[in-house]
Amino acid sequence: MTRRVQRLAVLGAGSWGTAFAKVLGDAGREVILWARRPEVAASINERHINRDYMAGIVLPPTITATTDPAEALDGVDAVVFGVPSQTLRENLAGWRDLLPRDATLVSLAKGVELGTLKRMSEVIVEVADVPPEQVAVVSGPNLAREIAAEEPSATVIACIDHDRAVALQHAITAGYFKAYTNTDVIGCELAGAGKNVIALACGMAAGLGYGDNTRATLITRGLAEMSRLGVALGADPLTFAGLAGLGDLVATCSSPLSRNRTFGERLGRGETLAQAEEANHGQVAEGVKSCLSICELGRRHGVELPISDAVRRVCHEGLSAADMGKELITRAPRPE
Amino acid sequence: MTRRVQRLAVLGAGSWGTAFAKVLGDAGREVILWARRPEVAASINERHINRDYMAGIVLPPTITATTDPAEALDGVDAVVFGVPSQTLRENLAGWRDLLPRDATLVSLAKGVELGTLKRMSEVIVEVADVPPEQVAVVSGPNLAREIAAEEPSATVIACIDHDRAVALQHAITAGYFKAYTNTDVIGCELAGAGKNVIALACGMAAGLGYGDNTRATLITRGLAEMSRLGVALGADPLTFAGLAGLGDLVATCSSPLSRNRTFGERLGRGETLAQAEEANHGQVAEGVKSCLSICELGRRHGVELPISDAVRRVCHEGLSAADMGKELITRAPRPE
Repeated sequence: MTRRVQRLAVLGAGSWGTAFAKVLGDAGREVILWARRPEVAASINERHINRDYMAGIVLPPTITATTDPAEALDGVDAVVFGVPSQTLRENLAGWRDLLPRDATLVSLAKGVELGTLKRMSEVIVEVADVPPEQVAVVSGPNLAREIAAEEPSATVIACIDHDRAVALQHAITAGYFKAYTNTDVIGCELAGAGKNVIALACGMAAGLGYGDNTRATLITRGLAEMSRLGVALGADPLTFAGLAGLGDLVATCSSPLSRNRTFGERLGRGETLAQAEEANHGQVAEGVKSCLSICELGRRHGVELPISDAVRRVCHEGLSAADMGKELITRAPRPE
Repeated sequence: MTRRVQRLAVLGAGSWGTAFAKVLGDAGREVILWARRPEVAASINERHINRDYMAGIVLPPTITATTDPAEALDGVDAVVFGVPSQTLRENLAGWRDLLPRDATLVSLAKGVELGTLKRMSEVIVEVADVPPEQVAVVSGPNLAREIAAEEPSATVIACIDHDRAVALQHAITAGYFKAYTNTDVIGCELAGAGKNVIALACGMAAGLGYGDNTRATLITRGLAEMSRLGVALGADPLTFAGLAGLGDLVATCSSPLSRNRTFGERLGRGETLAQAEEANHGQVAEGVKSCLSICELGRRHGVELPISDAVRRVCHEGLSAADMGKELITRAPRPE
């Protein structure tokens, strides 16, 4: 019998958490959205809007919000984590004892934890103390704004347990949103983390005034280095050719809605990390952190990551974006 | 001893032929550019500009132009064909007896010949009566305007004869332009033809008002169907993950400079083929023709090409772009 996922908690009411909750609601599911701030929860419950993170979008009435994690997690079939990757461990520690025993735990976060170099699903397995089969990840070309606007989009749900992936697939299939299943959790997560770093590089190129040829080249060579790292860590190379790899990478590197791309653009125009951070509501983009853990993974596994490493040196070692551009261009030509 | 390519003819002074000639000139090569129209040749010789196809760009003085193919082809080491794919056979028939015996013949054209379903290198082998080892193709994320503006770009030179590919690689390596070699001529050519069809689909999606998620999804699924066809025809799947595949596809599908994308956008906004043709200087985009030969190749080899086939039906069977969108969205979800 197929497992049914009817009631879900989404923990984190940022833009992707909110858009994902909307998809679930539109797919006929009952959703409890946990928000940290009471005014966000109140606005969702009373007016079905989340103005700070998803202005102009009316949420389905099947979404209720709460600031109480115990209320959010009560009796759900699946729990969706929509908090930033570097805070997942800390958040999860507070939620751990409230998680229903057999609920599928779903990560929306894209990153590799600094220090431990763990993927998000590994953090979940460790902190929630569940078998890896119980954890799924969602990754694809999923700019939250466009999904909230009900533009046709698709994603990948990866879970070692194919039945759980299928149950989730049904739970998030709305008219405008389609999900494909995959069992390659490692590949989906590394692709999701890696693309933020390549998006920073594409942003830098745009900031330097370069056009679509340069971006397409960075995307292609960037995907190649992401795949090499993935394969070294046990991922299926085909994942990188799919929606969670190429698809997400192209969307993130192309869209003005992408925070990593926009952040990189500022660096490309000559702003400092501190200036770009200030313009981004006081936060660095995810890729600024991920490039450190990704380059460290590359170093440990003997995988060359020229673009990610250049981004790391721009973000953390004072290399200028202009010099990074020159350096990447002058690498010796060779067979592809 | 490595073959040296020092003197080259470029036949066709359209935008890509002209930009490619400029790269060769900037790489220190002697270039004779054949133009059909005397005023184009005169303007290049007298003022080093090609206003109609490359306004605002000053060409290096090492490029001379002529309308006489015999003069263009005299004593060259390589001949570069920069004419549209559906006219290559006819043009080549007129040039055949003028080709230096051992010159490398290089195709810039991207298409599959209607009727014969031959790739451009196959047309060259047949009409010029040369062995396949003598023919090379160039394919990559190469928007002509950006290359002429000396933005950093890269391309792939494919030739069964690796030595010829390397000699060409040296001949086109300019400061801003980098070439990778490949021996997979089939893959590079099919990728080059297929991407124009997917770019039409991306244009239609943009014309319908859809954003980056939709485009990224079309690019990803489009590349998957292009690869499937390529593999069925003997190509290396890795070519599709490289600059001639993914790279060219992303550039063409993203850029407002791409004629196929722009053409598709008009269809997406509800214009008829005739209206879009009129807006495009009275010509249909390459993909409008290529989709016929590509779908026919798919049919003969039993390869499903849902996006290309939908484009074909919009262009040639009166399907509306809006209905095409709905149809692609509602295909049943399944493992990726």
